[in-house]
Amino acid sequence: MSTLATDAAPSLGADLGRIVGAPNVETRPAALVPYRTDATFGFSGIPWAVVRPGDTEEVSRVLRFANDRGIPVVPRGAGTSLAAGAVPTHGGIVLALTRMNRIASINPIDLTAVVQPGVTTQDLARAVAEHRLYYPPDPGSQRVSTLGGNVATNAGGLHGLKYGNTAGYVLGVEAVLADGQVIRAGGQLLKDVAGFDLVRLLTGSEGALAVLTELTLALRPAPATRTTGLAYFADLKAASNAVRGVVAAGILPATLEFLDAKCIRAVEDYAQLGLDTDAGAMLLFGDDGSAAEVERTVAEIADLMREFGATSAQVATAAAESEALLSARRCALPALSRLGGATMLEDVGVPRSLLPELVRRIDEIADESGATVATFGHAGDGNAHPVGCFDPGDHEQRSRVAAAFDDIFAAAVELGGTITGEHGVGAAKLPYLEAQLGSAQMALLARIKQAFDPVGILNPGKLGS
Amino acid sequence: MSTLATDAAPSLGADLGRIVGAPNVETRPAALVPYRTDATFGFSGIPWAVVRPGDTEEVSRVLRFANDRGIPVVPRGAGTSLAAGAVPTHGGIVLALTRMNRIASINPIDLTAVVQPGVTTQDLARAVAEHRLYYPPDPGSQRVSTLGGNVATNAGGLHGLKYGNTAGYVLGVEAVLADGQVIRAGGQLLKDVAGFDLVRLLTGSEGALAVLTELTLALRPAPATRTTGLAYFADLKAASNAVRGVVAAGILPATLEFLDAKCIRAVEDYAQLGLDTDAGAMLLFGDDGSAAEVERTVAEIADLMREFGATSAQVATAAAESEALLSARRCALPALSRLGGATMLEDVGVPRSLLPELVRRIDEIADESGATVATFGHAGDGNAHPVGCFDPGDHEQRSRVAAAFDDIFAAAVELGGTITGEHGVGAAKLPYLEAQLGSAQMALLARIKQAFDPVGILNPGKLGS
Repeated sequence: MSTLATDAAPSLGADLGRIVGAPNVETRPAALVPYRTDATFGFSGIPWAVVRPGDTEEVSRVLRFANDRGIPVVPRGAGTSLAAGAVPTHGGIVLALTRMNRIASINPIDLTAVVQPGVTTQDLARAVAEHRLYYPPDPGSQRVSTLGGNVATNAGGLHGLKYGNTAGYVLGVEAVLADGQVIRAGGQLLKDVAGFDLVRLLTGSEGALAVLTELTLALRPAPATRTTGLAYFADLKAASNAVRGVVAAGILPATLEFLDAKCIRAVEDYAQLGLDTDAGAMLLFGDDGSAAEVERTVAEIADLMREFGATSAQVATAAAESEALLSARRCALPALSRLGGATMLEDVGVPRSLLPELVRRIDEIADESGATVATFGHAGDGNAHPVGCFDPGDHEQRSRVAAAFDDIFAAAVELGGTITGEHGVGAAKLPYLEAQLGSAQMALLARIKQAFDPVGILNPGKLGS
Repeated sequence: MSTLATDAAPSLGADLGRIVGAPNVETRPAALVPYRTDATFGFSGIPWAVVRPGDTEEVSRVLRFANDRGIPVVPRGAGTSLAAGAVPTHGGIVLALTRMNRIASINPIDLTAVVQPGVTTQDLARAVAEHRLYYPPDPGSQRVSTLGGNVATNAGGLHGLKYGNTAGYVLGVEAVLADGQVIRAGGQLLKDVAGFDLVRLLTGSEGALAVLTELTLALRPAPATRTTGLAYFADLKAASNAVRGVVAAGILPATLEFLDAKCIRAVEDYAQLGLDTDAGAMLLFGDDGSAAEVERTVAEIADLMREFGATSAQVATAAAESEALLSARRCALPALSRLGGATMLEDVGVPRSLLPELVRRIDEIADESGATVATFGHAGDGNAHPVGCFDPGDHEQRSRVAAAFDDIFAAAVELGGTITGEHGVGAAKLPYLEAQLGSAQMALLARIKQAFDPVGILNPGKLGS
């Protein structure tokens, strides 16, 4: 099936320039350097050209051109993938969608926004806030990450327990197929079952099936207030037990995040938030809604935390304090990256009830392997982010972390979980996918890929390859 | 591509009996009569056999057997499809999944239920209620419809505005491919992005891609209370304006349903609920949650209804009164079926803001064609159910309704809407699908179908055919 080209033709830059205009094509090696990698440690490729199309028609013409010649095309937003999803492992054209960054409409009655893929998550969040509306998905990279990338990876965020992930907010897409044909699926509709669910199939397809050129996203009324609280525990098992207590009481709050002891200490070193560095684990909790309801719910959660063994639990009394607490969670990764110099951030998930068992195994694996692994994540969602910290120049340290992660993936799958809860498979986790999905499903993914992209130009070496 | 068999081999019954046991196979013509049709008027087929497998292994063996011989297989739950989705239009085997009706587990911490496809929607709702949990999707046929059918069609219900459709509750599936291979996608996980989203692709695939043999469904904590209210309007435009007012005030209630004047009169004739038969339109509204919050929200909606022109708006003061109000909506279809004898129920959808325009066009089309069409539906979701009422023996009446529906589908598509919001495409709406999706997407659906089911045995003549 490998009909892909393996080298750039000398005329590539000029050919692409005729489609998108010369200023929107780069082929100079120095200008291509930023496109060799994304935010994943240890993965790189060598792009032949970077193209910045300005509209759907140009995307279509670039794809038709590439498809006719078997040239790989790697769609790219902000390049914040943590699974090497945007790395041009097979060379070819990097299709940078950042110029297509227009918010076409915000409709406060249909509760929809229509956007181009290059709009950043934060820009949309701010634009809809002006209409007292809310776009819930907020991945850690929201300041720079693009909505096209969020949809292509079904990105998560800090409010998944109550609000779900990006996929729950994608109502419609315009997409360009590998051969340049343009399709539209879904629309500004809450309900539409006409045809197989291509909106959802393309959501999370990581650029391997089509290029998203327009997104219709669902919005919600902005909640009147948000409040956050904080509880400390002797260990993560106790914290997880408190999460069970909250869910069993019939509460699904907007935020329920955890940090282990190593994360707490790293964050405190980094940001001096006044955290209790003697605690074995920390839970951040919070909710949004009407002022009265939020106050009641968050107080009830704090009570439950104490009832289920928290050594202390407090609720923020002002918005600034809430923000400070949330920043403890948001800065976990930069804080950890100072521990060793480089980090490998992982993304395993299990049923919520098995999270303490997963974290117990992560710690055990790390101890046995001698790797430094700290873990934080979404306690309510059962999604843990173990972070391996190491000196990038120390090959042995790095191998220890890699070996520990192999075992951590296996543990997650064994617990009925996943090798990736929200970051995606990309090139980084493709070798582990069959252990989770089995050979019949892997073959099926390849046939689906083939149905969309028979030549195999779209993000080769990723999903479906 | 038509490698399908067109006739039953004489040994078919015996061959199938060896797989599922003789008592679970029917080939006698009289016993097959109920399987010739579903709940759709005017569509029938002639099955060669009905098979009732008892487990996944038997489903797998039946499919392998059929696939080797090119025998069509039509998966069937309760046969309540309103789009001829379960009609064996090409003959073959009807695979009745009603024996596989076990609730395997209900987990109150992970908030999941694992069920076989033949469990009825109502049985699950009742079973989870015992754990103070809630499974929100409640299609009109919930008393008999099966969860396998609900998932295969991404069924809707009366609470879609707040809770979404069935697809939002499917976390994992076990499915048997046409060749008998068994795959599992997703699981008891809130977040899992490993691979293309097969859970969602199979949800709503109407039996054309695989046979669902186990479902992992998401549950929610049961709301403490529910309250319903009722408002009357001079016409549907005024009612729709009030819906806009509610949404613009930042409220997304659990229930926001409408009946037009013809429906109000038919329901009152049928059920004597004391409805105002002089009203031009009626809105049912309601919410669920904590008692204080619900009381406040529903009162606020009633105020908004009055502010936006309701001639009257009242809130139920007791649970029994709430139930009576909801039954006005639930009995709309049986009530209308008495108007002419037979009904054709349709299912068009548009962006919420365009619902009054859609209903205006429906009425205009009905008036011009001389057909009797009454409309009710989900005002909050933009999903309308026009019902054509006619004497089944009167060929001209029937043709008038059919012609009116052709125009209604076209109007929905022209308004950026859909030919089916929640009932599905089936055999009934396949001829209209290309007008909505375009030829490139139709070809893509066929290639996806081919990736799953190369011989084409699964529900032929439906999606992807």
